Amino acid sequence: MSQWIYFFDLCGTAVFALSGALAAGKHRMDPFGVIVLASVTAIGGGSIRDVLLGTTPVFWITNHTYLIVILATVIACLILVRKPHKLPSITLPVADALGLALFTIIGAQKALLLGHSGMIAVVMGLITGVGGGIIRDVLCRQVPMVLRTEIYATASIVGGICYTLCLASGVNSMTSMFLAMFSTLIIRLSAIRWHLSLPAFDLKTKRH
Amino acid sequence: MSQWIYFFDLCGTAVFALSGALAAGKHRMDPFGVIVLASVTAIGGGSIRDVLLGTTPVFWITNHTYLIVILATVIACLILVRKPHKLPSITLPVADALGLALFTIIGAQKALLLGHSGMIAVVMGLITGVGGGIIRDVLCRQVPMVLRTEIYATASIVGGICYTLCLASGVNSMTSMFLAMFSTLIIRLSAIRWHLSLPAFDLKTKRH
Amino acid sequence: MSQWIYFFDLCGTAVFALSGALAAGKHRMDPFGVIVLASVTAIGGGSIRDVLLGTTPVFWITNHTYLIVILATVIACLILVRKPHKLPSITLPVADALGLALFTIIGAQKALLLGHSGMIAVVMGLITGVGGGIIRDVLCRQVPMVLRTEIYATASIVGGICYTLCLASGVNSMTSMFLAMFSTLIIRLSAIRWHLSLPAFDLKTKRH
Repeated sequence: MSQWIYFFDLCGTAVFALSGALAAGKHRMDPFGVIVLASVTAIGGGSIRDVLLGTTPVFWITNHTYLIVILATVIACLILVRKPHKLPSITLPVADALGLALFTIIGAQKALLLGHSGMIAVVMGLITGVGGGIIRDVLCRQVPMVLRTEIYATASIVGGICYTLCLASGVNSMTSMFLAMFSTLIIRLSAIRWHLSLPAFDLKTKRH
Repeated sequence: MSQWIYFFDLCGTAVFALSGALAAGKHRMDPFGVIVLASVTAIGGGSIRDVLLGTTPVFWITNHTYLIVILATVIACLILVRKPHKLPSITLPVADALGLALFTIIGAQKALLLGHSGMIAVVMGLITGVGGGIIRDVLCRQVPMVLRTEIYATASIVGGICYTLCLASGVNSMTSMFLAMFSTLIIRLSAIRWHLSLPAFDLKTKRH
Repeated sequence: MSQWIYFFDLCGTAVFALSGALAAGKHRMDPFGVIVLASVTAIGGGSIRDVLLGTTPVFWITNHTYLIVILATVIACLILVRKPHKLPSITLPVADALGLALFTIIGAQKALLLGHSGMIAVVMGLITGVGGGIIRDVLCRQVPMVLRTEIYATASIVGGICYTLCLASGVNSMTSMFLAMFSTLIIRLSAIRWHLSLPAFDLKTKRH
């Protein structure tokens, strides 16, 4: 079981590293800048989670595999992604959605294993899922995805609640994980595909 | 006594959550985005303080009341604040000033309780007071209030020094708290009202 | 030996505080805002390092000297730097490069002393070196230097690798330090002087 979680964690790391590297490519950064942005995106959310929970040194210090996965992803990306016009514009959002789904579960899982409540698990899932992307967007001076009206934080929160509820209802760990990941992914991808959004809270002064 | 501090802490949380929610409303975010921004504003400063002091898991993980206060504030805000043109433009700065005053004391208090010096207490008051607002402003891509010339960090630092000096001079805890909060609030509100500012440190090249 | 490291640490602190204060001056901040930005720049990277490594309370809480050095630097800067047009435009980048070199070594050193691997030492050197500057640039709403194509993260990573390799090859501690600092400094200053950059990873869609 825990091997699957570890495998998902590494997948999420690779996927977010890719999303960071692609964002770096849009800003014409040099290879080491690409590594920095890819790393921050991939391990930023989990680092914030570990630091808030007090489980330091954070996960990637005690296990080098994460940094190696990031390095490999960046190198592969630098070598393979050379024809930008062949890269569909949807690549970054989809990679990001997959990472969001994977990391939400990882974060919620970790909080529950430490004995925290379902509420904290949902919050930690959210932090793990959106933290890295927020740092990436802030560094690239973009409005963080989480601030835009397209359903983003919502997808992570729904995934986290789904995971916690499934576990609480006695659904087995693996099924809970897949259900939660699937719900986050389907919500986020639908939002991207059909430009869905919840009704916005709008305080902008309107002129009549 | 400590009940008063706890009560102030929750007030500050609600007030900063409101300021975060109002900022979110200006950016037309969806309800879950509003929750994220309100939370970050309300517990961001205190989280940074706890993480730097090493008192992890941070306060809102071990006590759910803070998250519940934020949720309640956001829901109330989403339901009640529906007529933006009836909301005076001064609401956000004033809510922010009140939060600044409350959180400065809470932060200084916590550092002193942990046995740190008055200097660290002032710094922790400042971090608790301005941290959440800085994160809110960075995420909304605004110049952080603390960077603008209107007296902001100054108000928190004066409040923190006032609190530490009062306690050191034997003034009782409650009076010290009120004096410090009052001084922060009066300085910040005066600065807002009359656009006061300290002389700026200005290195912008002037054209002659 | 460890006295030299401490001395370099304080030098780096002063130099980064100066770079933060100069950035604040470009944004016309008030004196306390200058202190905040100078502090964040000077101790931001080291604080992130300590928090990730779990060595909390962070270094400047247990040793007041850092805050005093920052205060002294800011006061000196406010008094002395009064003629902006006499300040060469190269001052900020050069101060920043010196801080980068000093802090890279300090960070790598700390990780090694805690028993972490060379890889983590390089990463911690990088975080200590670029962390404060990134926060400064984000707060000032500038594209972080580390994101620009001019060699920046690269200089720190090369310095960190050089330091770790020297120590591993049995070079004595002091020589390793100087070699590593010199390599970082020479790379970064050359990059500034001749506008060197590594080939950028460029995904910007080109029009044909």
